[in-house]
Amino acid sequence: MEYAELVKLLEETVKIPIYGVLGKLRNNLIYLATSEGEISIYALVNGKSVKLTKSPIAVTTRPKSNLDFIPFARDVEKGKEIHAVYIANLKGEEFQIESPRVRISSLAYDSKRIVLTGSSQSETSIYVIENGKLSKLTTIPPFSFVTDINEKCIIGSGVLKGNPRSQEFFIINFSGEMQVLTPKEGSVTNAYYLMGNKVYLISDYETLGESYWVYTYDIESKEYKRVEIPIEFKPVEIYYDPEDSLVIAKRDGESRLFDNGKEIKTPRGTISGATRICDEIYFSHSSLVSPYKIYKANREGKTEIVVDNRKVDMGELDYVKLKTDVDVPAWVIKRKVPGSTIIYVHGGPWSEVDNSWDLLIAPLVLAGYNVIAPNYRGSTGYGSRFMLMNIGDPGGGDLRDVVKVRDYAVESGIANKVGIMGYSYGGYMTLLAVGKEASKWDFGIAGAAVADWVEMYDLSDSLFRGFMEILFNGKNIELMRERSPITYASNVKVPLCIIHSQNDTRTPLSPVMRYVQELHKNGKTYEFHVIPNLGHAIYKVEDAIDLLLPALIFLKKLNRG
Amino acid sequence: MEYAELVKLLEETVKIPIYGVLGKLRNNLIYLATSEGEISIYALVNGKSVKLTKSPIAVTTRPKSNLDFIPFARDVEKGKEIHAVYIANLKGEEFQIESPRVRISSLAYDSKRIVLTGSSQSETSIYVIENGKLSKLTTIPPFSFVTDINEKCIIGSGVLKGNPRSQEFFIINFSGEMQVLTPKEGSVTNAYYLMGNKVYLISDYETLGESYWVYTYDIESKEYKRVEIPIEFKPVEIYYDPEDSLVIAKRDGESRLFDNGKEIKTPRGTISGATRICDEIYFSHSSLVSPYKIYKANREGKTEIVVDNRKVDMGELDYVKLKTDVDVPAWVIKRKVPGSTIIYVHGGPWSEVDNSWDLLIAPLVLAGYNVIAPNYRGSTGYGSRFMLMNIGDPGGGDLRDVVKVRDYAVESGIANKVGIMGYSYGGYMTLLAVGKEASKWDFGIAGAAVADWVEMYDLSDSLFRGFMEILFNGKNIELMRERSPITYASNVKVPLCIIHSQNDTRTPLSPVMRYVQELHKNGKTYEFHVIPNLGHAIYKVEDAIDLLLPALIFLKKLNRG
Repeated sequence: MEYAELVKLLEETVKIPIYGVLGKLRNNLIYLATSEGEISIYALVNGKSVKLTKSPIAVTTRPKSNLDFIPFARDVEKGKEIHAVYIANLKGEEFQIESPRVRISSLAYDSKRIVLTGSSQSETSIYVIENGKLSKLTTIPPFSFVTDINEKCIIGSGVLKGNPRSQEFFIINFSGEMQVLTPKEGSVTNAYYLMGNKVYLISDYETLGESYWVYTYDIESKEYKRVEIPIEFKPVEIYYDPEDSLVIAKRDGESRLFDNGKEIKTPRGTISGATRICDEIYFSHSSLVSPYKIYKANREGKTEIVVDNRKVDMGELDYVKLKTDVDVPAWVIKRKVPGSTIIYVHGGPWSEVDNSWDLLIAPLVLAGYNVIAPNYRGSTGYGSRFMLMNIGDPGGGDLRDVVKVRDYAVESGIANKVGIMGYSYGGYMTLLAVGKEASKWDFGIAGAAVADWVEMYDLSDSLFRGFMEILFNGKNIELMRERSPITYASNVKVPLCIIHSQNDTRTPLSPVMRYVQELHKNGKTYEFHVIPNLGHAIYKVEDAIDLLLPALIFLKKLNRG
Repeated sequence: MEYAELVKLLEETVKIPIYGVLGKLRNNLIYLATSEGEISIYALVNGKSVKLTKSPIAVTTRPKSNLDFIPFARDVEKGKEIHAVYIANLKGEEFQIESPRVRISSLAYDSKRIVLTGSSQSETSIYVIENGKLSKLTTIPPFSFVTDINEKCIIGSGVLKGNPRSQEFFIINFSGEMQVLTPKEGSVTNAYYLMGNKVYLISDYETLGESYWVYTYDIESKEYKRVEIPIEFKPVEIYYDPEDSLVIAKRDGESRLFDNGKEIKTPRGTISGATRICDEIYFSHSSLVSPYKIYKANREGKTEIVVDNRKVDMGELDYVKLKTDVDVPAWVIKRKVPGSTIIYVHGGPWSEVDNSWDLLIAPLVLAGYNVIAPNYRGSTGYGSRFMLMNIGDPGGGDLRDVVKVRDYAVESGIANKVGIMGYSYGGYMTLLAVGKEASKWDFGIAGAAVADWVEMYDLSDSLFRGFMEILFNGKNIELMRERSPITYASNVKVPLCIIHSQNDTRTPLSPVMRYVQELHKNGKTYEFHVIPNLGHAIYKVEDAIDLLLPALIFLKKLNRG
């Protein structure tokens, strides 16, 4: 019954719900959860969880505490990430509203309007929906996102001056006049919260890319001001809610919660969201080894669980930093030493594996594999300098960092077999690693991978062409070719399991099919699984099962001998 | 846990062993079995089963009762069906002997020699292995098979005169002189047993393709003689063992066993082999709804089980004949009426679904689906005229027969949803049906399918080019194109699950990959699963799981809604 037990374990594990506190509507806690098998918006209405959305959602935004509804976007083309806009209210009603047929990458709203960024094949624009009427306000650089609005203007951020190593913020009024602003040229600055004339910013401009802090920009006086937050902790990343004066401060993959400067004691891990309701603070928390829970802290800082979760035994968790030409932080979860070990490479690349529950890592660990998750250069969570190191060099220094972590797994005696696995950019790194560093691995598992940047560029919409022009520091076709796994397909030496969704519009299937045919021509050993009616994003527990089951069976077969 | 239970059921079902009595070595019963998870040769040595082979076997032959060893061939290229020859003896020892690196399609032996037919890209030949020395005796037409030898000659049969609608037999001496013989031009005649000067034949020549009977050909007198066997049953197919004077007589998918004309009572179903040891008769038996067992019958014809098996509840079994321009026999297994129903199309095409345990059908039924298995024109078991009706017309009349059975499933109220599934030629029929008869189906599952006969022809070795030249009545490229599923890929309307082994050398993967890319270009809904290190033949229980699991999960998802 070995497969049957494996599948049971997988099903049980992916059903463990994920929670993320979004904020509040009229003093009701609003949070994201997968409790009923799909990503949905929930409200906690006098202690009871109420599902506000009818089917999986793709994009939402911070709820406005003075309102009783929240907008969200839902995929309406079987995973192709063409979205429609809806609003859900506290009554649990859902209404679709007029919206463009585009990929929606950000949403913001107030009582009068919903604004969004939408990308088509040709352009990325800001759209405004007012009294149910849709209008296109202006086109903007593709890698831009709206974050907040009020009756006067829209704020947001992005790569707005064509410098892939900096981010600026914008203020746009409803006649479409746009100002692009930055406290310092070349800094990474994001505008995220609008309060009266004050635009709240998170920026690295005072620290030369070491860490971020909170600032305000006054729309009238045009002054930048550092927000003084008295916390006894030096974070690398920070989130400040000016309405609740709550701070989530993060360093080395773990975060802490502060209420007016006073720390609220939480378990080790990360806080995925927090909000104040009356004089209680609600926050969602998890770690790599403990599933998400939602807690409530009272005035004295005493916490209790308000939305609980399963207990699981995930084994021993370590955090290491390894030296290449940079420090490479990595999370190490040991189940059996020495044992079959998976170097799990996160996607993004501008993302991180922090100490929070991970839907893809947990089943591997519970199936008995050691997992080591590096935060290679280009990861977030370690300052903008580290994050920007992969600009113009994807699959270069970051791959060296991953290989270093692989060497550590072997030399430290953790691994007797070592493979590489990842999804999206992690799938890209997997295919590149087994081709360019073929002797380093015993197996590879690539989900939603990039096999050929050049073909992908041609197939991409405005947003993802913009993404690639940032990553490759311009439309650098030569570098794209040199950094494409298909260029190295003939070098592959180890069994590969390739899993890809049919309708993926971020990392399209067809270059991966060409890659697989290269493997086939060269007589390589591989599995290839194409999943129907599914795209890049995972909205449902079932989707996660479809993607992970072939991987777990592949691993089982390999480790059977 | 819905998937987990499904996988448990699949694992339990494919582990139900299959038995086939081959004969005897020195009064020890010799039989094929999958009891330990792979197709192996077993001996029953004073009541105990002994496994004689170390890993799965691909081809063997009738054991010689006066000897203590049996030759067999094993795939040595990960499913590519390049075979090596071995012998196994009653001590359970196994020896590899010198053999050509070719696809071996038949074996025969005596105390001095092993002979075989082997196909390379360029030719098919008869090879002789004598005192461990290999020599090529002669090349022969590709679709030929050896069946027996003695000290003077080799006998066998095939399509030897270039007429795809007839089969002749041959006698070859060890200097390579070959006579091609037939009792009647245009008949289907097979030589299968050599006893002194007598060649035993099974031929349709007296019945104009209605049924077969047993004859002898005297090598000295060159006379043909009908073998008089006094049985009170008119079979369509017959097997007669002149050494044991045992008869297995078959009609309408069920067989009966006769000992010197006297019937041995067996349950309904089919007998997959029988032999006499001392004065007891051993035979293997199964039906579509009862797994294989090996029985022993004493002098009085009293039977007892000597190798038992699991009991399973497979539900209600019917046998119907439906009219197109021919009678189309079909087996009907009902689990839930009305219910989701699978039209299971067998491979070959020169094969049948008879009333015997089926590794691919059983899991579908136990998972709760109704299964209807047609014996479309071209199937064996109904006389040579019926079998030869597909010559020059594959995917024509046979497809009409399958569609007729589909209509019956719907009109009779058995099916509320109806899909088509098959492996090999059945996979071909599946892809062709969902393209050419797109409105008839709710889903399709194609394993090891033919997507493009033209490309397949170019990729095939001598044996399979020969097979196609028979099926298409010559190298008829135009007809091959017209009858290829890839020609109709854009018409597909229903979800498809396509499962294919990487190393398949009968129905190669690459045309199927092109077919899948056509589906993708046309935005069809499909799953595609490529299984590594596996070929066309299923040798292991694990292989069956790898092939069937995606199909069962696909069905589960469809029937979930």
